[in-house]
Amino acid sequence: MQTLFHYNWQVREDSYRLCEEIAEEELLLKRTGGVGGILETLFHIVDVEWSWIRVLQGKSDFQENFEEFNSLKRVRELDAKFKPEVEEFVLNWDESMENNLLHDTLPDGRIVTDTWGEVMRHVIAHEIHHIGQLSIWARELGIKPVSANLIGRGLAPIPQKK
Amino acid sequence: MQTLFHYNWQVREDSYRLCEEIAEEELLLKRTGGVGGILETLFHIVDVEWSWIRVLQGKSDFQENFEEFNSLKRVRELDAKFKPEVEEFVLNWDESMENNLLHDTLPDGRIVTDTWGEVMRHVIAHEIHHIGQLSIWARELGIKPVSANLIGRGLAPIPQKK
Repeated sequence: MQTLFHYNWQVREDSYRLCEEIAEEELLLKRTGGVGGILETLFHIVDVEWSWIRVLQGKSDFQENFEEFNSLKRVRELDAKFKPEVEEFVLNWDESMENNLLHDTLPDGRIVTDTWGEVMRHVIAHEIHHIGQLSIWARELGIKPVSANLIGRGLAPIPQKK
Repeated sequence: MQTLFHYNWQVREDSYRLCEEIAEEELLLKRTGGVGGILETLFHIVDVEWSWIRVLQGKSDFQENFEEFNSLKRVRELDAKFKPEVEEFVLNWDESMENNLLHDTLPDGRIVTDTWGEVMRHVIAHEIHHIGQLSIWARELGIKPVSANLIGRGLAPIPQKK
């Protein structure tokens, strides 16, 4: 489980660095699909990850909106603010938490039950999906997108030959 | 590990069904980003998943190209042909395989070493990333994309209250 979070955090950092090469008006431009545009989609990734980790811990959710974080600097600051809490939860994840149940109330009032394991994988897939969207927008801007490769990032400790 | 493969297989099936609503010329149209276009990206997902599972088993890789599979029907047939082998490997995955090593020779001759666990997660992330790209193209066509939500798909067996 942790490996895919580490992967996402690396790709997100790569994405911020890519954004440094993109004009702010392009980062903020409303685009088709995704969440608003490039920067709002990154904001959404940060927000959703943190919110679910909060929900699993029974803590209150984040209700800010993008208008308050509409620059690369502010999104990165928000990410840096949320990261320690997310990281602590993820790094302390163990398999005994897999089948803990979360009862979530939907906007329409229905109550759905998910396992914590499902929620964690939902958060993982959520980011990867949105990064895929960013890759299309990067190509439309004539920019090489961030690599989505998971291998080659040094995420697994490879035992040294003796 | 298996849950994310099941997720991908469900989303892929949903994607095929969405493709049924899209004209073949749109499925084949070359687009910016992704792999060629909608159908070629789905072909690529199927090809890459199977190829890595073959590589892990030390079996020969697939060398066909998209020109031979350039219809929704043919991609689905290819997927159905590959699926049993992929499924058998995935469903028999256990944690003892996590740190098995794969020595892979890159096109430039360098040899890189990955753990099997990394390769499996690479395959998972690969599909999710490309499905994210398809979601942009669906919106560009005015079509609601396949849901990328992992929760709510019944992927985890929820224990019944007694």
